[in-house]
Amino acid sequence: MDKRILVKVNDLTDFTTEILISVGLPRKDSEITADVLVTADRRNIESHGVARLKRYVDGLRSGVINPAGKITIIKETPVSLVIDGNGGMGQPIAQSAMELCIVKAKQNYLGFAAVRNSNHYGIAGYYTMLALQEDLIGISLTNSAPLVVPTFGKDMIIGTNPISIGFPTKSHRPFLLDMATSTVPRGKLEVYSRKGMAMPDSWACDEQGRPTTNATQVLDNLINRRGGGLLPLGGGTETTGGHKGYGLSAVVDILCGVLASGAVGLDVYGKKDAPSEVCHFFGAINPEAFMGLAEIQVNMDYFINMLKQSAKANGQTVIYIAGEKEWVAEEQNRETVTIQDKVFVTLNTIGSEFGLQLMAIE
Amino acid sequence: MDKRILVKVNDLTDFTTEILISVGLPRKDSEITADVLVTADRRNIESHGVARLKRYVDGLRSGVINPAGKITIIKETPVSLVIDGNGGMGQPIAQSAMELCIVKAKQNYLGFAAVRNSNHYGIAGYYTMLALQEDLIGISLTNSAPLVVPTFGKDMIIGTNPISIGFPTKSHRPFLLDMATSTVPRGKLEVYSRKGMAMPDSWACDEQGRPTTNATQVLDNLINRRGGGLLPLGGGTETTGGHKGYGLSAVVDILCGVLASGAVGLDVYGKKDAPSEVCHFFGAINPEAFMGLAEIQVNMDYFINMLKQSAKANGQTVIYIAGEKEWVAEEQNRETVTIQDKVFVTLNTIGSEFGLQLMAIE
Repeated sequence: MDKRILVKVNDLTDFTTEILISVGLPRKDSEITADVLVTADRRNIESHGVARLKRYVDGLRSGVINPAGKITIIKETPVSLVIDGNGGMGQPIAQSAMELCIVKAKQNYLGFAAVRNSNHYGIAGYYTMLALQEDLIGISLTNSAPLVVPTFGKDMIIGTNPISIGFPTKSHRPFLLDMATSTVPRGKLEVYSRKGMAMPDSWACDEQGRPTTNATQVLDNLINRRGGGLLPLGGGTETTGGHKGYGLSAVVDILCGVLASGAVGLDVYGKKDAPSEVCHFFGAINPEAFMGLAEIQVNMDYFINMLKQSAKANGQTVIYIAGEKEWVAEEQNRETVTIQDKVFVTLNTIGSEFGLQLMAIE
Repeated sequence: MDKRILVKVNDLTDFTTEILISVGLPRKDSEITADVLVTADRRNIESHGVARLKRYVDGLRSGVINPAGKITIIKETPVSLVIDGNGGMGQPIAQSAMELCIVKAKQNYLGFAAVRNSNHYGIAGYYTMLALQEDLIGISLTNSAPLVVPTFGKDMIIGTNPISIGFPTKSHRPFLLDMATSTVPRGKLEVYSRKGMAMPDSWACDEQGRPTTNATQVLDNLINRRGGGLLPLGGGTETTGGHKGYGLSAVVDILCGVLASGAVGLDVYGKKDAPSEVCHFFGAINPEAFMGLAEIQVNMDYFINMLKQSAKANGQTVIYIAGEKEWVAEEQNRETVTIQDKVFVTLNTIGSEFGLQLMAIE
């Protein structure tokens, strides 16, 4: 059931690139997209890895994604941009937007961009990492398909709207937060449904807006649009802080969609087989705007040591820093990476259409 | 027990101002501080209102707060500042820092400030509101006394580190998020302990780092430094998303303390009767950096309508927007406000030392 197939990272990247080229995406854009997807797999964020390739291929064919869509700069100041993605592929749009932020941050200390009319851009943290590679602080946010129910509501209005922010360090791996503002992603419900397990009641609510532990029922309601859906971080009540997760997810929609006059909430993926109108927000902050790179790196190491060296809970041996598990995985999966058997089969089914084959390592 | 006393807002403000002047804080700084505290009471955020006056008075007398502490600008760029509060009162330091951000945002689109060596600054949202009054987007963050246990830890390392962010609107009240990154503040445990009620297990952990429902035990452990403490938003396990709240609280410490080379984590209020070394972070964003004020206000109203008009959960009649309840309370408490009987008595006990009396309305 959970059998895994080992593949070479280079093979997986090349295969993904060639598939995307085959459905009309330019080579450069295909290479960027493949790198974002394979990086997710290497970082053990499988939900956003090559398992999504079929959805991108379908999107490129159905009109959700315009393979020829290029960015337009709608507005520009020395420290900010509003960018229109014109319905193009999310990953190359996001990469371009962050690169423009990086240039501004290097020249003018700060660079922020709100991006409209884009598409699903993969892991938010990928673009934060582009800033980190330049020794800058990075921020990456995106809105997404409505799956989350606001506090005291019963319908899905807001996306899982992730927040990513990263800070450079000295000896430690960079601090890299990359978190959905829902308690869990939809995929977690699918796992619990398949296994017939009861969910924690902070994950999702039923068609009346009541927190529930029945994953199968929630997924069924969701598919048949009966109401209910995922809950924001903190769950379905103010008592457990659900209004905070709801507030944070709204902030993401505002920074992305409102600032760019793009789609928010229900309007994201609002029409079937039409452009998704996903919006993003990026930021690059030059450490020289504050105490400077060298000092900030030392301060980061000091804070990380304070956290990691503090007393552990019963049965625990490590206190993790945001991104730490993912950096370790990425290092371990430098040459090879495993993907689910099911995903391997799907990839080769897509590939067979174009005479492309992904090889497993024996 | 929960008897409430009605007072005039002007009386409460004047009384608070005069008390602060009596313990050596300059008049202007006292007026600012009194306004921050009374605004919290008017917004029904009592934990950060005049109930805290005794702690400020004690702090001004014990050396935690230097009544003569003035800000120094350590570093400045066209869009950013690093400010040293030199151990002064948190509220006037924070007000000055946000005012400097506002000037930069008006001139150069963005203004951010990291502030070190300050003190407790009251409600984070107060400074966000200063930006909103100027039709700017506002951000206000602060680190605070260590009360929160990191995921897989058992000791309190991080503060309840609030995040406030606000956006201007057209017809609706401004969106104003102001949330601690812990599930609840310490005060909530005190209420549950007094009433002998079982807490939700996402609020706090025991001395072994295990989520617990026993508020009295947690408070007792906390006072006697036996381990345990508040849990981050999402609770004490990764399953319920506690690592996300922990990640957010760490981000607050980094933006405040790390960027300013100030205190972080355990070093905040690290020494008894010594400067607290609290750090803050402020931001003002000119809407003209993005699609402009008029368009953003219209977009905000559209998004707020979408949320408020969506279907309500069973038994609910209103979906709230961040800050909405507090704006309504502030409007209702324009002329008069109630405070707890216990707080009223404490205030008059402090006042009696200086020949000051707070009058109740019959």
